Amino acid sequence: MWQRLSASKKFACGSPNLSAPNEAAQDVEGAEVSQSFDRLWADLESIGRVPSGGYRRFAWTREDHTLREWFTGECAARSLDLTEDRVGNQWAWWGGPDAAVADGRPGVATGSHLDSVPDGGAYDGPLSVVSALAAIDALRSRGVVPQRPIGVVNFVDEEGARFGVACGGSRVLTGAMTADRALGLTDDEGLTMAQALTSAGREVTHFGADPQALARIGTFIEVHVEQGRGLVDREVPVAIASDIWPHGRWRIDLPGEANHAGSTRMPDRQDAMISLAEVLLAARAQAVERGGVATIGKVSVQPNGLNAIASHVTAWLDSRAANEEPVRALVADLGEVVASLGGQIREDSWTPSTPFDDMLSARLRRVIGVESSLSVPVLGSGAGHDAGILASAGIPTAMLFVRNPTGVSHSPAEHAERADCHAGVEALAARLTDLVKSP
Amino acid sequence: MWQRLSASKKFACGSPNLSAPNEAAQDVEGAEVSQSFDRLWADLESIGRVPSGGYRRFAWTREDHTLREWFTGECAARSLDLTEDRVGNQWAWWGGPDAAVADGRPGVATGSHLDSVPDGGAYDGPLSVVSALAAIDALRSRGVVPQRPIGVVNFVDEEGARFGVACGGSRVLTGAMTADRALGLTDDEGLTMAQALTSAGREVTHFGADPQALARIGTFIEVHVEQGRGLVDREVPVAIASDIWPHGRWRIDLPGEANHAGSTRMPDRQDAMISLAEVLLAARAQAVERGGVATIGKVSVQPNGLNAIASHVTAWLDSRAANEEPVRALVADLGEVVASLGGQIREDSWTPSTPFDDMLSARLRRVIGVESSLSVPVLGSGAGHDAGILASAGIPTAMLFVRNPTGVSHSPAEHAERADCHAGVEALAARLTDLVKSP
Repeated sequence: MWQRLSASKKFACGSPNLSAPNEAAQDVEGAEVSQSFDRLWADLESIGRVPSGGYRRFAWTREDHTLREWFTGECAARSLDLTEDRVGNQWAWWGGPDAAVADGRPGVATGSHLDSVPDGGAYDGPLSVVSALAAIDALRSRGVVPQRPIGVVNFVDEEGARFGVACGGSRVLTGAMTADRALGLTDDEGLTMAQALTSAGREVTHFGADPQALARIGTFIEVHVEQGRGLVDREVPVAIASDIWPHGRWRIDLPGEANHAGSTRMPDRQDAMISLAEVLLAARAQAVERGGVATIGKVSVQPNGLNAIASHVTAWLDSRAANEEPVRALVADLGEVVASLGGQIREDSWTPSTPFDDMLSARLRRVIGVESSLSVPVLGSGAGHDAGILASAGIPTAMLFVRNPTGVSHSPAEHAERADCHAGVEALAARLTDLVKSP
Repeated sequence: MWQRLSASKKFACGSPNLSAPNEAAQDVEGAEVSQSFDRLWADLESIGRVPSGGYRRFAWTREDHTLREWFTGECAARSLDLTEDRVGNQWAWWGGPDAAVADGRPGVATGSHLDSVPDGGAYDGPLSVVSALAAIDALRSRGVVPQRPIGVVNFVDEEGARFGVACGGSRVLTGAMTADRALGLTDDEGLTMAQALTSAGREVTHFGADPQALARIGTFIEVHVEQGRGLVDREVPVAIASDIWPHGRWRIDLPGEANHAGSTRMPDRQDAMISLAEVLLAARAQAVERGGVATIGKVSVQPNGLNAIASHVTAWLDSRAANEEPVRALVADLGEVVASLGGQIREDSWTPSTPFDDMLSARLRRVIGVESSLSVPVLGSGAGHDAGILASAGIPTAMLFVRNPTGVSHSPAEHAERADCHAGVEALAARLTDLVKSP
């Protein structure tokens, strides 16, 4: 569809939403960006939507397949070269990425993921993929001829909703998680990732780290809906990320003894639900005391019967803070509580604090700021992202946040005003243009 | 298969396990009871078994269907007349029940249910059905010619594991629950009971109370595995029930706000899991203080995601005590806790204290006691039973408990030694013989 947009030879990075004195030409180009973004967005709205108004788009499910097909089609419509790396992440390149690597000028990649948490919002993930495609449309309509390849990525299984480990696609790609570990992860039905891949018609023999695909990414920029209230009271619709907080996930197993709810006296009980209550309150108290965050959002109760005392509860803890120390201390203290209840706590994943690239971020901030005459905020990210995994692998990486008026994410209430989304596309287009104008 | 047992014309109610000085004839008959019971028991062992070693046999599922077919086959093998009442409870009669009602000598019924709680034990329910069939075999092998019809029942959905209300089959039969309410109950997949019945190929037009089927039951005796430690330290393998404790179930809904686990500060959270923790501890504290029991064994968490704060938790409370007052007080106090958390508590079912028939129980106790020379204990039942629903409907009813060495029920650990099961059959056979020997 981008072909239908009127081609302007003039590059302009401003948008009506970012720059105060607008020129007529920019208005027209802003309208083109809006149309491209809006059409792409409308295509996604119904896929995996559930009655809550949120989305259930889990890795290697039917919904995921539909989203991958949509991505394939949009890339084909733009004559981008679609490839998959050895994990199944989809990469669409404008310009040959391997020749560029050979020339010492590896590409600029952008994008994110299309999967969701259970009943997640529409923006976390898809905003970045749609913004990337719309930005390519903008560059082309403005006649930008990139001197470096531009890639758009759809990472698989970023949320970890199905197999419990977030950023699975980028973790395996970079080697941060081994193929064996990933393939052995199980979903709630007890299916391994290997079985899920096979069921999705995929070959797992070559599944694993992919240095060749990784080498194509000279620079990475990820647009993301803001997940807190950091931009709610500011005048500017976008922000730059400074870093990603250190972040871990733990599995907590609490034993009990199944027994009859009517005939077992209170002193004779070993009720795993009571242990859960103690762990929930301890985790919260620790997080409040230490200034981080701790969440138990997922539990599995056995046998989960109306008149049976719980014989086992599994709870998953997610904890983060601005630095590592409070998280480690929280987990150590919680581990003592769990042990006192006869339970076990096991680390499922740990991601250290990840700073983004200073120079890249500064330049991104300047490009936006020059046009908008606004001071672009810099925020830390409590949430993990594929951008963080790539940054940890040594790739210069930056993130761009788009204002979220509810401050709520991972929920149907997650939101971004359309004008703010368009501003995000303009900011991304400006920075991409800046990055590819010279080899 | 009972036809293969050698027919003895002599009635004897004693068994090697109950009576101290055994006669040779009794030994032979005890062996017949054992063979009949053991063969029936072996047929059931694999149906609906899960890896935990327990059972998942829920109403109107494939497993339930298999169990109903098994029951049908065993009744056919005994030339019992199988009928279904308007709820779907299966009744197998030895002797015409309607003619007996017309003659003013309605039948003696026994049996229980074949469904289970999630991961329930093998004995709760099936012990009674198998004991009933084995007792009929015993009566026939001993040449007993009943002067009143004897019925064996398989009640549907006794545990309420699927639709949340226990004793659904007997409640609707007696009118204690209306057909409309029952048909509108939903399972975890959101299917109504009406939909489940239709899926199972059943017609719901005539579903409801069945006074004609009820009138056939002049007397009811239910054998049941003991669900506490009441018989563990005694010399006698069986006991008589005095009454069933008053018992209620409540649904508790706790609201939260779905949000991102990493980017939402602790003070900004409305976490439904934290509310759950407070409710769990309050329910336990109340039960301990008031001397009853309170159990939250089933919860449903929305969206139940690893990195999403819970937006809603539903918890089901089961509470009972030796009398009504402590249960009502517990629920009232817990209701205040729930309200303070912005939640709601709703009564799903209430069953008042149900005394069993004094004369029937006394006679049962005497029949067993005479043969065994042992004093048969009388225990209150914290668990509800179909026998309690029938007793509430004015039918003279008694219960017989079989010793459970673990004291654990609703769990794979639920157990009864085979010799104790045989003793239960002998006790039931003795009482049935006593009841049907005169019109």
